[in-house]
Amino acid sequence: MEDLSFIPDLPSGPLDVYRKKASFDWKRLKLAMEGDIDLLRLKYKIWHTLEKDPLFAHKSVTPSVEEQKRIAQLQLNKINEYNFIPKVSLKGGYSKRTRAVMTLNEAIQSLNPSVSVKMAIGMYLFSNAILSLGTERHLKFYEAVFFNREILASYALTEIAHGSDARLMRTTATYDPNQKQFIINTPDFEAAKCWVGNLGRTCTHTLLFAQLITPDGAGHGLHAFLVPIRDPATLETYPGLVVGEMGEKIGVNGIDNGFIMFNQYRIPRENLLNRTADVTEDGVYESSFSDPSRILGAALENLSAGRIGIMQESCHSMSSAVAIAVRYAATRTQFGERCREIPLIEYQLHQWRLFGYVAAAVVFRVYIESFTRVYLEIVEKSNAGIKVDNLSEAVSEIHAMVSCCKPLLTWSVLAAAQECREACGGHGFLKASNLGDIRSNHEPTVTYEGDNNVLSQQAGNWLLRQYHSATTAGSVDSPLGTVLFLTDLTEILKQKFIPGTAVKSEHFLMSTYKWLICYVLKQTHQKYESELDRGLSKFEARAKCQVYKWKTLSKLYAEYLALLFFLEELQKKDEELQPVLRKLFMLYGLWSLDGHLVELYQGGFAAGEDCARAVRDAVLQLCAELEGEVVGVVDALAPTDFVLNSVLGNSDGNLYQNLQKTLFSNPGAFERARWWQEVVNVPKSKL
Amino acid sequence: MEDLSFIPDLPSGPLDVYRKKASFDWKRLKLAMEGDIDLLRLKYKIWHTLEKDPLFAHKSVTPSVEEQKRIAQLQLNKINEYNFIPKVSLKGGYSKRTRAVMTLNEAIQSLNPSVSVKMAIGMYLFSNAILSLGTERHLKFYEAVFFNREILASYALTEIAHGSDARLMRTTATYDPNQKQFIINTPDFEAAKCWVGNLGRTCTHTLLFAQLITPDGAGHGLHAFLVPIRDPATLETYPGLVVGEMGEKIGVNGIDNGFIMFNQYRIPRENLLNRTADVTEDGVYESSFSDPSRILGAALENLSAGRIGIMQESCHSMSSAVAIAVRYAATRTQFGERCREIPLIEYQLHQWRLFGYVAAAVVFRVYIESFTRVYLEIVEKSNAGIKVDNLSEAVSEIHAMVSCCKPLLTWSVLAAAQECREACGGHGFLKASNLGDIRSNHEPTVTYEGDNNVLSQQAGNWLLRQYHSATTAGSVDSPLGTVLFLTDLTEILKQKFIPGTAVKSEHFLMSTYKWLICYVLKQTHQKYESELDRGLSKFEARAKCQVYKWKTLSKLYAEYLALLFFLEELQKKDEELQPVLRKLFMLYGLWSLDGHLVELYQGGFAAGEDCARAVRDAVLQLCAELEGEVVGVVDALAPTDFVLNSVLGNSDGNLYQNLQKTLFSNPGAFERARWWQEVVNVPKSKL
Repeated sequence: MEDLSFIPDLPSGPLDVYRKKASFDWKRLKLAMEGDIDLLRLKYKIWHTLEKDPLFAHKSVTPSVEEQKRIAQLQLNKINEYNFIPKVSLKGGYSKRTRAVMTLNEAIQSLNPSVSVKMAIGMYLFSNAILSLGTERHLKFYEAVFFNREILASYALTEIAHGSDARLMRTTATYDPNQKQFIINTPDFEAAKCWVGNLGRTCTHTLLFAQLITPDGAGHGLHAFLVPIRDPATLETYPGLVVGEMGEKIGVNGIDNGFIMFNQYRIPRENLLNRTADVTEDGVYESSFSDPSRILGAALENLSAGRIGIMQESCHSMSSAVAIAVRYAATRTQFGERCREIPLIEYQLHQWRLFGYVAAAVVFRVYIESFTRVYLEIVEKSNAGIKVDNLSEAVSEIHAMVSCCKPLLTWSVLAAAQECREACGGHGFLKASNLGDIRSNHEPTVTYEGDNNVLSQQAGNWLLRQYHSATTAGSVDSPLGTVLFLTDLTEILKQKFIPGTAVKSEHFLMSTYKWLICYVLKQTHQKYESELDRGLSKFEARAKCQVYKWKTLSKLYAEYLALLFFLEELQKKDEELQPVLRKLFMLYGLWSLDGHLVELYQGGFAAGEDCARAVRDAVLQLCAELEGEVVGVVDALAPTDFVLNSVLGNSDGNLYQNLQKTLFSNPGAFERARWWQEVVNVPKSKL
Repeated sequence: MEDLSFIPDLPSGPLDVYRKKASFDWKRLKLAMEGDIDLLRLKYKIWHTLEKDPLFAHKSVTPSVEEQKRIAQLQLNKINEYNFIPKVSLKGGYSKRTRAVMTLNEAIQSLNPSVSVKMAIGMYLFSNAILSLGTERHLKFYEAVFFNREILASYALTEIAHGSDARLMRTTATYDPNQKQFIINTPDFEAAKCWVGNLGRTCTHTLLFAQLITPDGAGHGLHAFLVPIRDPATLETYPGLVVGEMGEKIGVNGIDNGFIMFNQYRIPRENLLNRTADVTEDGVYESSFSDPSRILGAALENLSAGRIGIMQESCHSMSSAVAIAVRYAATRTQFGERCREIPLIEYQLHQWRLFGYVAAAVVFRVYIESFTRVYLEIVEKSNAGIKVDNLSEAVSEIHAMVSCCKPLLTWSVLAAAQECREACGGHGFLKASNLGDIRSNHEPTVTYEGDNNVLSQQAGNWLLRQYHSATTAGSVDSPLGTVLFLTDLTEILKQKFIPGTAVKSEHFLMSTYKWLICYVLKQTHQKYESELDRGLSKFEARAKCQVYKWKTLSKLYAEYLALLFFLEELQKKDEELQPVLRKLFMLYGLWSLDGHLVELYQGGFAAGEDCARAVRDAVLQLCAELEGEVVGVVDALAPTDFVLNSVLGNSDGNLYQNLQKTLFSNPGAFERARWWQEVVNVPKSKL
C-alpha cells in the first residue's frame, strides 16, 4: 500500500461520530479519485507551500476589483518562482508534463480561480496554440511563455458583437508587401476584441484571430497572429492600440479582462502562425503541406484542452461546495423531538438535496481523470507521429464528448453550489462560508470556452450523424466505443420496464440510459427530418429541434459517459472502496435518471406507477445508506482547510467556535460606524 | 381611459421593430399589472425624484461593504425626508396606507434592495409588531418609528444555533421584582442573536424575542421585548451589550446585519410587549384578556406581511431580469444564413429559455396584487373589530398560501435571474448588466422570513388537514375557496387525458392542476399513514414524506393559486389586453405543468406519447406566438432605465453604443495599472 502520510490527518472533533461510521479510509478514497500518487503529492506540496506564504493569506473582506487584479498577478509571479514543476519535468513526455501542468492548475484554482485562469490563458492556452498553429519561427515565444515564464500572453478571439459565431469576426489583418507586414485593423467598436483575459492590465502579447486579406483584396478567413501589446519593461501599450479594462464582473475579478481596438497596427509578416497556411513575402496566400494527422491532433488539442481544464476545475469546485455543506449538515441540528435535536444530515430532504451532488462530485472526478488520460494518450501519439487508427473519427468523438460534458459539469456545479448555499441557511450567505465566491467564480465557465447551449448542439450533431450511420450503414464511427450500442438500436428500443425490476443495478441503469439515448435520438431525427420535409433549411430545422430534443440528447449522452467511464474505473479500485463507490455510482445514476422519467413514460418504456416509484424509492434508500459514509466521502473530496477557506466547512467540525472566531475578528466588527455623525437622527422624544 | 402621460414614452430605436408588433399598448398593460393608478403614479414620482438626487446615482464599481452601509443609511434618511407618503395618508385606512407603504417599498427595492430591507425591517416590521403584540404604553414607539421616523429599529429573533425552530431560542428575560426590570441574558455565543438587520451599525432599538422567566423560576416561552441598543444621539451601544457587525455577505451588503450578546442587561418591565400576556410588578405571569379575533388578525399580519413584501419585491426583481434579457435578445444577433444574422429572440431555444419567465413575471405580478388586496381587507376588518366569517380558518388558509407561494416566487426569481444572465452570454457577466446584483441581492429571500423548505412543509401540513377533512367529513375549511374542489376528489381523480385534447385551454390547465393536487395529496397522505403504521412518530413520518411528496404538493398548490387568482383578474382587464394576457397565462401554466408530467404518467392520468407531446408542443407554439409580443410585455414590466440600470437592457435598444459608453467610462479603464512596477517581468530575450 502506498504511503499516504503526506496527507495530514484530520483533527478530532464533532465530526468523528460520522467519520467512524465510514466503511473506508478517506485517504485511500482520495488517492483513488486522484488517480496518481505523485500528482496528489504535488497538489499537497503546492497547498502547503502557499499556506505559509503571506501573499496567499485569505482576506476577510473582498479587496477592490483593482486590488484583486494586483494580487492575482503577484500570486501568479510567485507561483512561477516556486517552480512547482521543475523544468526537467516540463521537458518530459507530453502526457506526463501536461498532467503535471493540469494538477498545478487544479491546485491553484481551488485557492484562487482568477490566478489559475490567468495562468491557463496566459501560459498554457497560448503556448499550446503556438505549438499547434505555429512553426519553428515561433518557438521562441513558446520557450518564453512555457519554460521561462518571461512573458504573459492572452488570447483574442471574441468580439463585442460576435462570440460563438467565429466566422463573422471582423478584425482584419491585411498584408502589405512593401513593408512585409500585416496591418491589423478594427473597423468599429462592434469588432473590438473583448473579454480577453490578461489583456486589461498585464499581458505583453496576444494571440489574435483576424480575417487575413491579401494585397489582391481576397479574404482567406480567420488566422492566428502573434501581436505585441505592451512593452514588457514598462507595461505601456504600444501606439496604434486602444486597450481597455472591461470593468467589474460578477466573479473572477482578479482576471484583467480587456478589450482592444487596432488602428492600422503593423506587425511583421512572420507573426502569422503559419502551420497550415502562409503568405509569401510578395503577398501570395499558400496552403502549406503538413502531416494531416498531426494537424488534426493539434486542432483537437486546441479545441479540447481548455474545456478539459474547465471540467477538472469544476470537479474541484463541486468538491469544495459539497464538503462545506455536508460538514455543516453534520454539525448543525434543527428540530427534533424528545429533547434530541437532529443533525440536518439525518433528514431525508436534506440528504436528497445534497447527496446527489456528493455522488456527482465523485463520479465526475473519476470520469474526468480517466477521460483526460485517454485524451492525452491520443494527442501524444498523434504529436509523435505514431499512427492512431481512425484518428479523425476519434477526434470527432472526443469533441462530441467534451461538448456535452463541459455543459453537464459546469451546470451541475452551479446547481450544487446554489443548493449547498441554501442548505447552509443564513450562515451560508456569509462571505466567510466561501459558497458565494465558489459560485460566482465558477459562473463564467458555463459561458466561456464555448457557450454551453452552443456546445451542446455540437455534441448533438455528432450523435445524429452516428444515428444516421447506424440506421443506414449498420455501423458507427466511434473509435472510443461510446456509442457502439447504436447499431443495436432496434433491439434496444424494444426494452420495457418490468415491474419488480431491481433498479439498483448497473445493468438496469446502463441499459435504461442506452434506451433513452436511442429513443431521444430517434425522436430528434424524426423531428429534424419532418422540419426538412416542411421545406426548412438544415439550419432552420436544427433550430426547431433543440428544446426537448437536441438539448435532452446531449445531456443524456454526457451522463451516460460519466457513468460508463466510472464503471470501467471502478473495477480497478481497492476492494475496500468498492461498496461506497458502487453506492455513489448508483445514486448519481438514478438521481440523474429521475430527470428523464418523462421520456421513459412518453416512449413507452414505462407505464403506470412502478417505474417512477422504483427509481425514486431507490434514490431515497441510497441516500439513507450513504448517511454514515458522506462525511468520509467529503473528507476525500475536500482540499485542505486553508484551501477550502470556509468557516462552515472546517474539518475540525467546531462550527460555532469557528463562527465566533470569524465574526469576532472581522475588522471593525465592534466599532461604531465611522460615519455615525452623518446618519444620526436624534429623536424629539426620549425613548 | 385613464391618463397615463405621467409614464414617459420610450425612446425610438432598434427595439421599435418588435414594439410595433405588439398587439397592445404597453402602458395599459403596466397599469393592468399595477392595479391602481395612484400607486403607479407614486412609483414613478419616487423614481423620478431619486433619479435627480446625486445621492442615488449608480456606481460603476461596487463600493466597499462599509461604504455600502453608509450609503444605504443616508439614502434611507433621505427617502424619509422626501415624505413620499404624506402623514395624512399614513393615518388613513389600514389597507390604503399599507398599500402605499408597500408601493414605496417596491419602488425603493428596484433601486437599492438594501435600503428597502432596512426600511421594511427597521420601520414597518417593527411598527407592525408593536401594533399587534404591544399595548397603549408602546404606542409612542409606533409613533416614533412609523410616523415620525425618528428611530430606526431592528428585529432580533434568530440565534446563532437556532433559526427555523424558534421554540429552542435560549436568550432569557428574567423578571426582577425588586427593580421591576427584566434582565436579558445570553448564555453563550450559540445563543447570540444574529443576522439582525440594522443592528450591526445603525439601529437604536430592537424588538427582541426571549424566553420569559418569572422570579419563581418558571419559563413562559418566547415573548417580545423592546430593547434599547444605542444612544440615539451618539450611536454608541449601551453597556452590557456586545454588538457586532456580521461582516461581508453574498449580497445586500448595504444592510448592517448584526449579532448581539446580552450580559445581564436590564430593561424596564413595561418594555414587555404585553398584548397577550404580562408580568405583574410582583412578578406574576398573567395571560391578558383580549378579543381573540383581533389577536388572530394581528398574528396573521405579523407572520405574513413580511413574506408578502418579499413576494412583491420578487415580482419586481423578476421583471427587471427578464426585461434586460429580452431586450438583449432582441438586439443581439447570432448565426444565421443567407447573410442574415438572426436575433436571439427568434431562436426557439432562446424563447423557451426566457419566455416562461416573462409569463411568470406577469402572472405572479397580477396574482400578488390581487392576493394582497384580499389579505389586507381581512386584516383591516379584523383590526377594526368587524366580524369576519371563519376568521381563524381564513388565517390558516392565508398562511398556507403564503407559505407555499413565497418559496415558489423567490425560487423562480433565482432561476430566472440565472437564466437571464446566461442568455446574455459574456456581456451578462459584466456588473454593468445588473443581472449579477439582481441575483445576489435577491438570493437571501429564499432563506429569510422562513426558509423556503421549512415554509413549504407548513403549506403541506394545511393541505393534508384539508385532505383529511374532505375525505372524512366531506368538507374543507377553505374560506378563500382555494381548495373547495378537494371535496370532489374521487371524481377528479377519475379524469384521464384524452389524446387530441386541446391543451391550450383554461379548462384543461385548471382541471389538470386539480387532478395533480388531488393525486399528490393522496400519495402523500398514504405515505404518511404507512410511516405511522410502521411505528414512526408524526414528526418522523412527516420527515419521510418530504421528497417527491410534500415538496411537490406545496409547489403544485402555489402554481395553482397563481393561475387561479390570475384567471379571476383576467376578466376585469381591458379587452385589448386579453389576448396577450391569455397567452401569457397559458404559457406560464403549461410551462409549469411540464415540470409535473411524471406525476401525470405515474398516476395514470396520461399514458403513451400524446400528453407530454401535446403539452410541450403547446409550450413551443405559445413561445412562437409571443415572439412579437414580449418586447412590449417587458416594456410594461420594466421600471425606468435609471432604475433598471443595465447596459444591456436600456429601453433605447442601442446595445453596442451603450456598451461602448460604459466600457469607455469605467474609471481607469485605459490607464496603465498603478501597480505595474510590482509585477513587471522583463524578458531576457527581445520578443
